[in-house]
Amino acid sequence: MKLYDYYRSSAAYRVRIALELKGLEVEHVPVHLGRGEQRRPEYMAKNPQGLAPALELDDGTVLTQSLAIIEYLDALQPEPRLVPADPLLAAKVRAIALAIACDIHPLNNTRVQAYLQNELGQSRETVDKWVHHWVLTGGLEAIERLIDPAPFCFGATPTLADVVLVPQLFAARRFATPLAHLPKVLAVDARCADHPAFQAAHPSRQADAE
Amino acid sequence: MKLYDYYRSSAAYRVRIALELKGLEVEHVPVHLGRGEQRRPEYMAKNPQGLAPALELDDGTVLTQSLAIIEYLDALQPEPRLVPADPLLAAKVRAIALAIACDIHPLNNTRVQAYLQNELGQSRETVDKWVHHWVLTGGLEAIERLIDPAPFCFGATPTLADVVLVPQLFAARRFATPLAHLPKVLAVDARCADHPAFQAAHPSRQADAE
Repeated sequence: MKLYDYYRSSAAYRVRIALELKGLEVEHVPVHLGRGEQRRPEYMAKNPQGLAPALELDDGTVLTQSLAIIEYLDALQPEPRLVPADPLLAAKVRAIALAIACDIHPLNNTRVQAYLQNELGQSRETVDKWVHHWVLTGGLEAIERLIDPAPFCFGATPTLADVVLVPQLFAARRFATPLAHLPKVLAVDARCADHPAFQAAHPSRQADAE
Repeated sequence: MKLYDYYRSSAAYRVRIALELKGLEVEHVPVHLGRGEQRRPEYMAKNPQGLAPALELDDGTVLTQSLAIIEYLDALQPEPRLVPADPLLAAKVRAIALAIACDIHPLNNTRVQAYLQNELGQSRETVDKWVHHWVLTGGLEAIERLIDPAPFCFGATPTLADVVLVPQLFAARRFATPLAHLPKVLAVDARCADHPAFQAAHPSRQADAE
């Protein structure tokens, strides 16, 4: 399998963590989002959204959307399970992942920040305020109330919730979002930072890191 | 079960379609997003994100995030299946749902439009252009290339992809987004409009419709 990857993309980082947790090896193909490589025709033919990541299977089938890819990996190799078998616990785990993937990340990613600066002429300061607002309000501050670290978000082993939370915290720190009032979120992040799979997937450890 | 609902919310509309497809009855509790009822303390205690929908089970457990709720309903009552059992088809279905739920809807929902107008002082015209940009570029234009209507997005029966696509088209039309260049998307939408479950879930048919 090939992962079309970018070291600093939160969504790609999620898939890297899932692959590491499952011990699955893939070829990493860098797509430099900063240089717009995701909009090249040959990449758009694989992922018409022009976003990273995408997972290309050995038969050439391309899967898109990080959470759909991780659910596929969970079916392909169920151990360790990232979405719990119990439907109620699965709903709670998916809710954290979706709160980040739907309600935080899309509002602070590179393409939206670029639109605010270039199309709407907003200052860097206004864009930072925008980022902090969406990351915190209804975002990480809600997640702080929804998780119950033990020591991962929902128990003794990492789930999809942790897999999505850690890259969002990496992104929040890049934009200097204040996080000190979120002790449960920070405790989960610290525990994950000690885990070899999370370490191996870290942006700084990728071949395309700058 | 109780669904905390708002007739015009795309995310609540998705859950209503899923409930109708499965023939599950719930009590609908309106949360008026336009009047800010989602930020009342008694609602925030149920859903700390302050967003609709939320599904309250008979034991008081509250589930949040529309896609997590629908996956739960799919486990609770598997027929008709909304996420296919085949992992590869499931990945394609989830990718369409997530492309909308992560990359389109969060950028054009009410709270973001309000921030652009009130906090950033943008005109209605600029906000409309913002909405059209994100709905189309990398959004519905990509989905047009990823689906293969037969007559629903992925075969003869509706899946999670159709359940999420139809409310997004309703929202796109509210903001007069041009859609004529998306024949496959429009064909799916027209087929769904003939389906009793999609009809019953339509915003205009809800008790709180204005």
